[in-house]
Amino acid sequence: MNIYDVSRQAQVSIATVSRVINGNPNVSEKTRKRVLEVMDELGYTPNIFARSLGLNTMKTIGVMCADSSDPYLANAIYYLEQALRRNGYNSLLCCSGYLPDNKKKCLELLLSKRVDGVILAGSQYIESKPQDNNYLLEAAKQLPIMLVNGALEGKGIYSTICDDRTAIFKAANSLMISGHSHILFLYSGSSYSSIQKLKGYHDACSRAGLPHREDLICSCPKDLDETVRLLCTVAARGVLFNAVLASEDIMAVGAVKYAHRAGLSVPDDLSIIGYNNSTLARCADPEISSIDNKVEDLCNATVNTLMKVLEGETVPSKTVISGELIQRGTTNF
Amino acid sequence: MNIYDVSRQAQVSIATVSRVINGNPNVSEKTRKRVLEVMDELGYTPNIFARSLGLNTMKTIGVMCADSSDPYLANAIYYLEQALRRNGYNSLLCCSGYLPDNKKKCLELLLSKRVDGVILAGSQYIESKPQDNNYLLEAAKQLPIMLVNGALEGKGIYSTICDDRTAIFKAANSLMISGHSHILFLYSGSSYSSIQKLKGYHDACSRAGLPHREDLICSCPKDLDETVRLLCTVAARGVLFNAVLASEDIMAVGAVKYAHRAGLSVPDDLSIIGYNNSTLARCADPEISSIDNKVEDLCNATVNTLMKVLEGETVPSKTVISGELIQRGTTNF
Repeated sequence: MNIYDVSRQAQVSIATVSRVINGNPNVSEKTRKRVLEVMDELGYTPNIFARSLGLNTMKTIGVMCADSSDPYLANAIYYLEQALRRNGYNSLLCCSGYLPDNKKKCLELLLSKRVDGVILAGSQYIESKPQDNNYLLEAAKQLPIMLVNGALEGKGIYSTICDDRTAIFKAANSLMISGHSHILFLYSGSSYSSIQKLKGYHDACSRAGLPHREDLICSCPKDLDETVRLLCTVAARGVLFNAVLASEDIMAVGAVKYAHRAGLSVPDDLSIIGYNNSTLARCADPEISSIDNKVEDLCNATVNTLMKVLEGETVPSKTVISGELIQRGTTNF
Repeated sequence: MNIYDVSRQAQVSIATVSRVINGNPNVSEKTRKRVLEVMDELGYTPNIFARSLGLNTMKTIGVMCADSSDPYLANAIYYLEQALRRNGYNSLLCCSGYLPDNKKKCLELLLSKRVDGVILAGSQYIESKPQDNNYLLEAAKQLPIMLVNGALEGKGIYSTICDDRTAIFKAANSLMISGHSHILFLYSGSSYSSIQKLKGYHDACSRAGLPHREDLICSCPKDLDETVRLLCTVAARGVLFNAVLASEDIMAVGAVKYAHRAGLSVPDDLSIIGYNNSTLARCADPEISSIDNKVEDLCNATVNTLMKVLEGETVPSKTVISGELIQRGTTNF
């Protein structure tokens, strides 16, 4: 029994039913009478009406991501939806973009739609300035806030993260052990995850006793042509590298294209490792070795934690999952 | 001024404010008094309350797609969000999956969240049985229903489609003119768009005076390994083909991998054309010629039409955009 039943049976719009309930004068006496009769007939009251609008009754989880056209985030959304559905929850998604102001508006929109919890997919939600995260801390007072691959301390905030730092450390370490002492590291952005990956690369250099060389660390756009251009520029500058470790698969595909263009044999002259283990890594020739950051596991763990939180169980505020290097044709160690 | 302001100022949850408004007895006298005082102080009334819950005031458009992990749909969501935001609208997304029952539930969820219109992204929303589309016709009585690359006749329903049939016809025709009389056509599913593409292939065969050969038309999963396996099986059966025309880029990538495995030179021994002009087509080696179905244009046109509908303008119920073949390394004509 809800406002739609009243609207349908009285043959008026939902807005009209709402006007009648709220005593708005812009309704003809005839219509008002019909709506009230139907409400009476169906045993429908404004109190039930308010509840049908989503107050504490509809099981819906809000999901936010910065950009659904990013393959990693698109997959995350998909797995979150599936996991929520299996648990009997609907989900509403909101793509926020990367600007703090829009992220905040997006969260407000979901809150206004009376969701039971919010999942923030991707590490783009943790800002470097602590005060920019206050809106998350505020929202967490009202309902659980779940972070997929982002970490923030706060009551009502739960993080599920992939240990990107260790995954990159291990991949770089394997490359170094197999004779690659000049690894070009490509990264993008300043998200929580990006910073962890960069730390992992530094860890491996330290472990191997290699100096920190800024010329081997490049900020790179998530774009095929731009990546090829960047690698050509780096090589033209005289920087020598015999491996590329990329923080995104699309950059690793760019590295394969660069190798073809430069006449380098992969992996003999140039080893390449991507990140995310996405379809893009499989489309290249040779297929690209890539770190699987277990997005499906992350999403399932996030939803499991959320379900426990909503049932009132006490759960750890942080869950960590390990990444795994999937070896294909661009490495041989 | 909204329920959040009351909740914040009275330092109680939104649910508590709602209980007070609805006369629910589960509120202490002290809390009730504080909430009513704040409401009075802020000039906040239950009537405004009802409006703040989304009745005719919040500008939000619901967006549905079957599966956000599909790159075409992920891009569509992205472009729709961007276009809506430019027009001052928020958007809420719901991934419905492919089952009619879940699609219906998804639409009901968006309706219950009081959106001002609904955009259905992708041609998966038009079912072959007319009665399965009744829920769309019903919903269109309440608010505009916009179809991106799907067509359905009905009051309040607006379609923006890419002319997939002509795009495939032209591509197949170009292949035939350049000497490819045995074109293997790979398609997937039975969506409106899939059927149009198949018709386009048949049109080209008819135009060239070629017989309809069922052995050259293959239903193919949207999966790399499955595509390679399918092509090996078709070849093993003795079916000869010197071109592959695929209704999805991922299948075209599979065709490139098949050619490498079979020792065929691309495009000399085998020409390949994909569909969607996605990043996948660019990751392969050689890069794949692909039909650009103008998803960004489709999304922008959809939002433009929706804005006009919401402003009360009369607009055509169907807008058609042409696809365009982007030539790369897998064709030479």
